Amino acid sequence: MRIGFLGLGNMGAPIAANLARAGHDVSIWNRTADKARSLVEAGATLVANPKAVASRSEIVFTMLADDTALDAVLTGENGVLAGLKAGALHVSMSTIAVATAERIAAMHRALGQRFLCAPVFGRPEAAAAAKLFVVAAGDPADLQTATPLLDTISQRVFYLGETPSSASLVKLCGNFMILSAIEALGEAMALAEKGGVAKTQLLEVLTGTLFDSPVYRTYGGIIAAQKYKPAGFAAPLGLKDMRLVGQSAEALRVPMPLLSLLRDHLLQTIAQEGEDMDWSAIALAIKKNAGLG
Amino acid sequence: MRIGFLGLGNMGAPIAANLARAGHDVSIWNRTADKARSLVEAGATLVANPKAVASRSEIVFTMLADDTALDAVLTGENGVLAGLKAGALHVSMSTIAVATAERIAAMHRALGQRFLCAPVFGRPEAAAAAKLFVVAAGDPADLQTATPLLDTISQRVFYLGETPSSASLVKLCGNFMILSAIEALGEAMALAEKGGVAKTQLLEVLTGTLFDSPVYRTYGGIIAAQKYKPAGFAAPLGLKDMRLVGQSAEALRVPMPLLSLLRDHLLQTIAQEGEDMDWSAIALAIKKNAGLG
Amino acid sequence: MRIGFLGLGNMGAPIAANLARAGHDVSIWNRTADKARSLVEAGATLVANPKAVASRSEIVFTMLADDTALDAVLTGENGVLAGLKAGALHVSMSTIAVATAERIAAMHRALGQRFLCAPVFGRPEAAAAAKLFVVAAGDPADLQTATPLLDTISQRVFYLGETPSSASLVKLCGNFMILSAIEALGEAMALAEKGGVAKTQLLEVLTGTLFDSPVYRTYGGIIAAQKYKPAGFAAPLGLKDMRLVGQSAEALRVPMPLLSLLRDHLLQTIAQEGEDMDWSAIALAIKKNAGLG
Amino acid sequence: MRIGFLGLGNMGAPIAANLARAGHDVSIWNRTADKARSLVEAGATLVANPKAVASRSEIVFTMLADDTALDAVLTGENGVLAGLKAGALHVSMSTIAVATAERIAAMHRALGQRFLCAPVFGRPEAAAAAKLFVVAAGDPADLQTATPLLDTISQRVFYLGETPSSASLVKLCGNFMILSAIEALGEAMALAEKGGVAKTQLLEVLTGTLFDSPVYRTYGGIIAAQKYKPAGFAAPLGLKDMRLVGQSAEALRVPMPLLSLLRDHLLQTIAQEGEDMDWSAIALAIKKNAGLG
Repeated sequence: MRIGFLGLGNMGAPIAANLARAGHDVSIWNRTADKARSLVEAGATLVANPKAVASRSEIVFTMLADDTALDAVLTGENGVLAGLKAGALHVSMSTIAVATAERIAAMHRALGQRFLCAPVFGRPEAAAAAKLFVVAAGDPADLQTATPLLDTISQRVFYLGETPSSASLVKLCGNFMILSAIEALGEAMALAEKGGVAKTQLLEVLTGTLFDSPVYRTYGGIIAAQKYKPAGFAAPLGLKDMRLVGQSAEALRVPMPLLSLLRDHLLQTIAQEGEDMDWSAIALAIKKNAGLG
Repeated sequence: MRIGFLGLGNMGAPIAANLARAGHDVSIWNRTADKARSLVEAGATLVANPKAVASRSEIVFTMLADDTALDAVLTGENGVLAGLKAGALHVSMSTIAVATAERIAAMHRALGQRFLCAPVFGRPEAAAAAKLFVVAAGDPADLQTATPLLDTISQRVFYLGETPSSASLVKLCGNFMILSAIEALGEAMALAEKGGVAKTQLLEVLTGTLFDSPVYRTYGGIIAAQKYKPAGFAAPLGLKDMRLVGQSAEALRVPMPLLSLLRDHLLQTIAQEGEDMDWSAIALAIKKNAGLG
Repeated sequence: MRIGFLGLGNMGAPIAANLARAGHDVSIWNRTADKARSLVEAGATLVANPKAVASRSEIVFTMLADDTALDAVLTGENGVLAGLKAGALHVSMSTIAVATAERIAAMHRALGQRFLCAPVFGRPEAAAAAKLFVVAAGDPADLQTATPLLDTISQRVFYLGETPSSASLVKLCGNFMILSAIEALGEAMALAEKGGVAKTQLLEVLTGTLFDSPVYRTYGGIIAAQKYKPAGFAAPLGLKDMRLVGQSAEALRVPMPLLSLLRDHLLQTIAQEGEDMDWSAIALAIKKNAGLG
Repeated sequence: MRIGFLGLGNMGAPIAANLARAGHDVSIWNRTADKARSLVEAGATLVANPKAVASRSEIVFTMLADDTALDAVLTGENGVLAGLKAGALHVSMSTIAVATAERIAAMHRALGQRFLCAPVFGRPEAAAAAKLFVVAAGDPADLQTATPLLDTISQRVFYLGETPSSASLVKLCGNFMILSAIEALGEAMALAEKGGVAKTQLLEVLTGTLFDSPVYRTYGGIIAAQKYKPAGFAAPLGLKDMRLVGQSAEALRVPMPLLSLLRDHLLQTIAQEGEDMDWSAIALAIKKNAGLG
């Protein structure tokens, strides 16, 4: 199948590589050509701009850092919208605002192009191992078209119905849930530490009983060891996602006080520790607020 | 072994029954004799008061509703402290304040009695099935004495070191973590619902990806179905536990803003819905704050 | 002096009227010509569009509902920027984002036009009575030019230095402070009411002792009487302002948990009571959260 | 009139001195006799214990640090309750829990003694200048008895009805309101500072417009100058008062999220800065959370 892939960062590069390795004809473009090199070696074709990627492809995947970056490759003279044929499909894997997903869906619809919103859960290692989780929403026929490719890069695809932005909403909820778990762990560990209980002991009890799940194992370990650098997912990106949740919450009139708390702790973390800490470093802010180290 | 068991409520009764069934000589007493009947039928001996229970036993278990109830059976003319022989062991399974655990430990020490703090995780069904988790702290020799009995009633025992109150602290942290997960689920589900995504769909994604653990399955199901009655763990009991966490947090000078949020949501729930809702009904308060039903 | 005035809402109309009454030659335009009628009767000249207003004026005042409305009258073919002569002055009285003030300042600068950011404190009655407070920032020479006119419409002008956006920031801080006082009053009154103390008694003590200031008298009275309609300042406008504060707080990396709380309470109020309540109706949400009527 | 006065701290000593200076026959006792010396020089009589004070007096005033200290001088062998004649009056000026006020009222009633709950607003300087505000509740006849003395030490007495604990509740609400204002000032000033606006400029605008009241002038000045030592009212005392508010809020089922925030900020302040900062140093914690010095 003729595929395009735009966005070759930590997540996009391994996903694109998995698609190329599966034998697809993959066209790529990247703002910094450097990042494209290893993909070209793996068989991908580097073309001039997003429009050229789109015009050569039946399906174009995008995996970009934020709404602005996605807008930049979609719209404009040399953008995807200008190149994608009527009937061809855009699969957006970025974590974007619900309103952005709605806007993009409308633009594609107006041009007779197809659109599937399909953000993913998983860190770069999971992308490389094709162990991502995909949450997809859009026309069932579009899902069917994309399914063989999504299966190639993930361990499971969840389908959320016909409204593309539903996938954005669920993805954003998921990130909110993760950071909520980090907050809870951070507060409990600060209390335990000041109360004379080792953080690893608390963590062993939690993950050995009711909290036997990846999020607590992964982040509990990070917090106990205080390994916030290098960032797996940087605090400013976490703040961006929480802002997107907040925009939906405000538009839908849903008070989310825990979300508010998370945003304030991310701000504190960035203000005190800088931009390059993992988002789980909110646990460091929590700890400092208790007068610890 | 000659065992005593005090506190035959939803949790204590099935635990005591499991001990009796294992062939131990179990003495019991209960404020309301009614609750003791089925245990007597199972072979337990009903005696006159806590002191009599203690004087007949090598190990006395207590599983009471709160610190006040525990104090009542321990101290006073006919209390456990007055009956327990020097060298005999008290195993406290109630969820109590850290300060209370410290105080009780000191009283036993002064009398040459032994004390193991050993609260449990699990609901009544888990107690009946001997599938509880025990978090124990105290002298290693005391743990060794109690281990065969703890193994009889639980699926796993975590040992937290020599300071009895550490077990209280970890148990309280665990309850805080559970209610934190409920809060996060409640906020995410309210957002999803107003955004047009079914709560069950969101839950399927969460528990199918990073949140594949009992606490999210159990409480996610309760919140999606809004089955807050009858209460598995009533909101006022949850409030009591969160107050105990707060007392430790204040004594240790640890700000816990998520805990504060949970306490306020429990207060709202009780104020609006009454005393007999499950503590997970904070999700109902969250939903109402968003203008939903 | 030849003055232009754009934005004839609850605030703008009485301000413009005061300027007209003071003998100035006032040009106006309004999207809905209706609102301009009484001003025309007072001597103002209705012209075709914002550009026409600007081209006839030495000073143009704007008093619009939000950043978007201000952008609309400034930019575009028939906007103020296109009409204002080099050296002429724009005095912006709207409550706008700090970033918007910076952007507008840069646009005027690029065109050789002058810009003073001068938002006001006060409700429509104060505007009519020329009792507003003005917080102004920009070039001192621009302030000097505007001073006779600002004195005409206000009881006092505060000068905040050369950076126009500083006036926006201070105005937004002021609105945050007001809503903070409302939150505190709302919580205290809910506690007093459930504790058997009349709200008016509490208010009498507060305003008779340490809180003897307009904000407590005004809003305390509104809350005690529960007169949230008609809105003096509607909850969605309050939410807009708090969002602007939040944008600055996020950009500047300043955690503001009280601001977060206010935003959540505004969302709850709008979700439960609708869009047309006064922003002080957060006290109603607070009260309902306590189970009160 | 024969008066007793117990509690000769920063507040009690100047109040007692004003009563002695007014010509009353004042009996005193203090745990540390030192503090009594200057009062004895002013004409007061030092006696052996609280019981002796009470048995000599028609009215006994108490002004103690907290509920525990008040309990200590009231109950016990040599306490006030044992000495006060039937029909004699106890005027309690301490800031105490609502539940404590209820309990003390019941004890006096049972002994045929009279009780007026009359806490005060004002710092030591105000006490010395007889410029306190008194909030009093209890039997109107008891108020009448105390009025000449209350007038001697204050600028105004507010009467809150027949239930003594109402005065405690209002006093606690007042302290909550003060700390709320400090929180709001702290957040606004941190934002202003990071946004390039001088804190004193912001404060001048606030106190020159809607916030022209003692609490903003006093605490705004303290925060702008960062003069948190020596403490006028130490953070741990503020925390104690907020805990008392919280106890009433929990008992009455009133969620107070702003109160929760204040408690967490006090905990942070004490954890980071120690026990001897003024309670307004929560503004320092707020500032540090924003990454400022």
